[in-house]
Amino acid sequence: MFCWLNRLYRGLSSPTGRTTQLIWGSLSRSLVLSSRRRIPEFSSFVARTNTCGELRSSHLGQEVTLFGWIQYRRQNTFLVLRDFHGLIQLVIPQDESAASVKKILCEAPVESVVRVSGTVISRPPGQENPKMPTGEIEIKVKTAELLNSCKKLPFEIKDFVKKTEALRLQYRYLDLRSFQMQYNLRLRSQMVMKMREYLCNLHGFVDIETPTLFKKTPGDDHSNKVFLRVEKIIWGAKEFVVPSREPGKFYSLPQSPQQFKQLLMVGGLDRYFQVARCYRDEGSRPDRQPEFTQIDIEMSFVDQTGIQSLIEGLLQYSWPRDKDPVVVPFPSMTFAEALATYGTDKPDTRFGMKIVDISDVFRNTEVRFLQDVLSKPKGTVKAIRIPEGAKYLKRKDIESIRKVAADHFNQEVLPVFLKASRHWNSPVAEFILEKQSLELIRLMELQEEDVILLTAGEHRKACSLLGKLRLECADLLEARGVVLRDPALFSFLWVVDFPLFLPKEENPGELESAHHPFTAPHPSDIQLLYTEPEKVRSQHYDLVLNGSEIGGGSIRIHDAELQRYILATLLKEDVKLLSHLLQALDYGAPPHGGIALGLDRLICLVTGAPSIRDVIAFPKSFRGYDLMSNAPDSIPPEELKPYHIRVSWPADSEAEKSSLDHPHHPES
Amino acid sequence: MFCWLNRLYRGLSSPTGRTTQLIWGSLSRSLVLSSRRRIPEFSSFVARTNTCGELRSSHLGQEVTLFGWIQYRRQNTFLVLRDFHGLIQLVIPQDESAASVKKILCEAPVESVVRVSGTVISRPPGQENPKMPTGEIEIKVKTAELLNSCKKLPFEIKDFVKKTEALRLQYRYLDLRSFQMQYNLRLRSQMVMKMREYLCNLHGFVDIETPTLFKKTPGDDHSNKVFLRVEKIIWGAKEFVVPSREPGKFYSLPQSPQQFKQLLMVGGLDRYFQVARCYRDEGSRPDRQPEFTQIDIEMSFVDQTGIQSLIEGLLQYSWPRDKDPVVVPFPSMTFAEALATYGTDKPDTRFGMKIVDISDVFRNTEVRFLQDVLSKPKGTVKAIRIPEGAKYLKRKDIESIRKVAADHFNQEVLPVFLKASRHWNSPVAEFILEKQSLELIRLMELQEEDVILLTAGEHRKACSLLGKLRLECADLLEARGVVLRDPALFSFLWVVDFPLFLPKEENPGELESAHHPFTAPHPSDIQLLYTEPEKVRSQHYDLVLNGSEIGGGSIRIHDAELQRYILATLLKEDVKLLSHLLQALDYGAPPHGGIALGLDRLICLVTGAPSIRDVIAFPKSFRGYDLMSNAPDSIPPEELKPYHIRVSWPADSEAEKSSLDHPHHPES
Repeated sequence: MFCWLNRLYRGLSSPTGRTTQLIWGSLSRSLVLSSRRRIPEFSSFVARTNTCGELRSSHLGQEVTLFGWIQYRRQNTFLVLRDFHGLIQLVIPQDESAASVKKILCEAPVESVVRVSGTVISRPPGQENPKMPTGEIEIKVKTAELLNSCKKLPFEIKDFVKKTEALRLQYRYLDLRSFQMQYNLRLRSQMVMKMREYLCNLHGFVDIETPTLFKKTPGDDHSNKVFLRVEKIIWGAKEFVVPSREPGKFYSLPQSPQQFKQLLMVGGLDRYFQVARCYRDEGSRPDRQPEFTQIDIEMSFVDQTGIQSLIEGLLQYSWPRDKDPVVVPFPSMTFAEALATYGTDKPDTRFGMKIVDISDVFRNTEVRFLQDVLSKPKGTVKAIRIPEGAKYLKRKDIESIRKVAADHFNQEVLPVFLKASRHWNSPVAEFILEKQSLELIRLMELQEEDVILLTAGEHRKACSLLGKLRLECADLLEARGVVLRDPALFSFLWVVDFPLFLPKEENPGELESAHHPFTAPHPSDIQLLYTEPEKVRSQHYDLVLNGSEIGGGSIRIHDAELQRYILATLLKEDVKLLSHLLQALDYGAPPHGGIALGLDRLICLVTGAPSIRDVIAFPKSFRGYDLMSNAPDSIPPEELKPYHIRVSWPADSEAEKSSLDHPHHPES
Repeated sequence: MFCWLNRLYRGLSSPTGRTTQLIWGSLSRSLVLSSRRRIPEFSSFVARTNTCGELRSSHLGQEVTLFGWIQYRRQNTFLVLRDFHGLIQLVIPQDESAASVKKILCEAPVESVVRVSGTVISRPPGQENPKMPTGEIEIKVKTAELLNSCKKLPFEIKDFVKKTEALRLQYRYLDLRSFQMQYNLRLRSQMVMKMREYLCNLHGFVDIETPTLFKKTPGDDHSNKVFLRVEKIIWGAKEFVVPSREPGKFYSLPQSPQQFKQLLMVGGLDRYFQVARCYRDEGSRPDRQPEFTQIDIEMSFVDQTGIQSLIEGLLQYSWPRDKDPVVVPFPSMTFAEALATYGTDKPDTRFGMKIVDISDVFRNTEVRFLQDVLSKPKGTVKAIRIPEGAKYLKRKDIESIRKVAADHFNQEVLPVFLKASRHWNSPVAEFILEKQSLELIRLMELQEEDVILLTAGEHRKACSLLGKLRLECADLLEARGVVLRDPALFSFLWVVDFPLFLPKEENPGELESAHHPFTAPHPSDIQLLYTEPEKVRSQHYDLVLNGSEIGGGSIRIHDAELQRYILATLLKEDVKLLSHLLQALDYGAPPHGGIALGLDRLICLVTGAPSIRDVIAFPKSFRGYDLMSNAPDSIPPEELKPYHIRVSWPADSEAEKSSLDHPHHPES
């Protein structure tokens, strides 16, 4: 009988009964964020006495004034009124003297806004609704006022009514009335508030705003190149440019406050944080937004362990109470181990199916292609075990898996079954000798109905292929009803010891930063910088949650000479563009490090939302459009004039232009 | 003996002794923001045991590890170490066995960063420094490590060393080490945190982030046109544009989240707030920043009184404890009264010198030009009294005042003295008859040494001229030592009942919004909309502090028909650009209203900083440049290509270009 909102604010620790039915009924978990917080005054400064959702038997006999939307009406007798807090049943007066009140309440369309005053009364015995937090009572209406009428809606404001995402985004202001969006946005607000309390009030961090009209940072592509590269999805992230009134001069919208947070440390601010708006133009990369928010943190005199403890405490403190508590410290894994075991730098550690190196099994194989691979440097044979795969996967699943491997990784994958009768199209099965088979069973702990996916190739390539297939198979198994990943489980993981540099793809003789050029090298590897820089590990760390990267950071370089050497000599960047930062390091820069958490992604995982667009009030579509207002929009040339720019229309722009003239772009 | 920082966090309510000397010594007031807050753990997650500033006699005998900057050294015996918290004296060991420690501490340049460990000991009797919070103790150093050496500084990090603002901005990371900047930024962070607690935890507001990549809002020039117009300083504020990858399509950086906050109310979010980054391209308007921050608030079902109470409570709750407490409710004044009495819409009510209408005194005057003015509609004679002006103002002051009036307002101002001997160049004095003179003395409560500044003209013009001169004269008097405005006084004022529309300057037959087109008309004036719209008052309210506008808001239009009528019929705006907002109002938009407080200006007034650039970590210069990084910067044409734009170089751009190639623009 407790309302979700009260629990969100007050923080009762256990009620789990169904809170509401109807649109508010989809959530049965409690939404507790804090036990110390009192419920805010939701009716201060306005003429209502109460919110719809807060009324209970304890209010019996009280005269109340409520504001809300008409949710539905029954037989011109009952009306259910909704506000952000919940639902309440109104009894429409039927006597002649209240004819005008009845007329208002019976004629106003659904979703109209009304003000009503009346008395809280008990529902007649037998008519209580135990599924509704306000279900023991109703309001005997005395006066009513129609504040705004609602026209015919493009869709019903009910959670069970399925809408396309394009429609939801076009009418976002209506979509926001849904329980789920109200819940997501309030949970986000509460969780960020708790983070601020932790950082500001408990640990002395200073909330500092940094500029978003800045300049391009060379080499500061904040996308993690380590794996994008392997997966061949380099998106060419760009910084948005903003023309200034100075001809040919542009601001850039920064991808992160990286330079500013480091300069704040040089400025002696010691502990900085910001809930920072960042910008990244990635074209139409799925589930990204051109502007996004990160919890941005930097500290002086800290090491990797310090930052990790800080973040563990931060998440523990701000974590919603209705979820399993966050257990700290989080486990940690090196990048090399993550690659070898999970084939990715962001392992989903909620389930097994780890990659096993079975090269040794095949050292003396007569299978030619295995021989070939194993004779090369870094040549390996690897496999993952799909538990009960023979039972749950179909032949066409295996075929589609093999096709993914061939198409996206240019690599062969072979299914191996224990039961001889099942070696569908598996050319290797017959070559596996009895001895090798036994060895495999031992190494991979095979059960009768399991399937092995086996591949051979260069270590990193083989691992990333199997890492991908591991996730695909998990999805397949779960689609068939196998429970691999507990939906209530939040599995955090630190990934550490990344390489500092990667060979440039277009020119492997040159290096680029694996993350960004301000990352400090691993203390044990400093000397390698001058001999074998490609072997240097960094002091970068990623935070992974359930297989998603939710944060990353590093200890930074605070030595100007080292920074200059890395930028100029190793990375061949134009040092002039960063002269202010290099100069700053020269003036007594303290050792420092930091991290940034991707807030949209984190809230998305916490709420279990299908997309980050469900935790952002006004998100852009895949293609970067605001489907509600139709931004971006055309601008007349005279308004571009003060900025000294002109549009370069593509040569075949006529056709394109007309195709772009649709008011809304049906997509997503 | 209390440290400013402890007080900032812990909130002791009264200590006022000098806190520190040296660079930390400039602040003697206590910096208390809250009495319930405990001091944060400043040394969590790092290897130091304490901060420099927190050590006291109670730490005697403790082994401590500190990080900090070398503030100065005395005779290779003492070293003063600084961190964000304060200063501590180190005793450099002199014995042979500690030669390496001595070498480090004696050779490191000032502003180098070191780690030291040692024991807290008492200073020898007589050597205590009562002006220094840590002045009873010192640290007997055992080990030291140089973490980063400092090169020769462009200026000393001492508050008494005067720097040009351009130099401070160029080396902002050094300027941030000053006590004043540390104080300003920490106070800002604390005050915003308290505001969040008030809004989020006490009153149920939801912190919601809205997009900054949006589209142009027609008529949404957020500058207050009511007075800019009169003062002839229309700056042509523009929205910055951000080219997208779609040819010819641009995002705009919004001047405020106005549309989004209203759409959130339509979405049933009920109570929204955001510490919102906003953008306004005003060229080089003084003391403005191209990006700025506002405390943005919107509520459903609220009226003007409700918003005003909310804001009064917000400021009271978040106000620093070392200032005089905020007294609520704030006084309120209509726009008409503010104009008539102070000649401005943002009266500085800390002092008198109000404008007096003395038209009646001159009804039967024989002075021709007064006759002429009074015979016209709205023709008036007005005056302000400068107390003891004859004593403090010089002849050239009066001449310069008259020149301001003539040059900027095209208006005559006449000084009138009581003593006949002093009628410097005042042609009117001799015409003022005995009777009129007595009447003036009565009306304006004249004393012997006072001066009157008299002007005649159209009501609004005469008032705004005298409003301007009132402030100029106050500055002049204060420069001569007269105390008119108590620096400890914070004088809040609501200004209400603004006109809803103004005639367009370029075409007075048409109307434009005095504030923005979503402002609701005053309920008493609704009918005038259809007959004499120029007479309609609005439900807009401004919050003024010490003569600066620090906030403004309004009750919004929630009726789609009314909004359409105002946009299309009265303002002749292109309604298509706002179709989404009009549509939203049709779907059961609740009555709603809100406000935005200019955070930079507010913090500037609270800290007494000379410019908003002193309360922003990385401000832009007057001309919108970041003098540290030299943003905005050139961008190669190939990087503009994905955005389908080209630079239009001005015809005579060569000369301009070369003049712009200086790495830094000496200005401000």
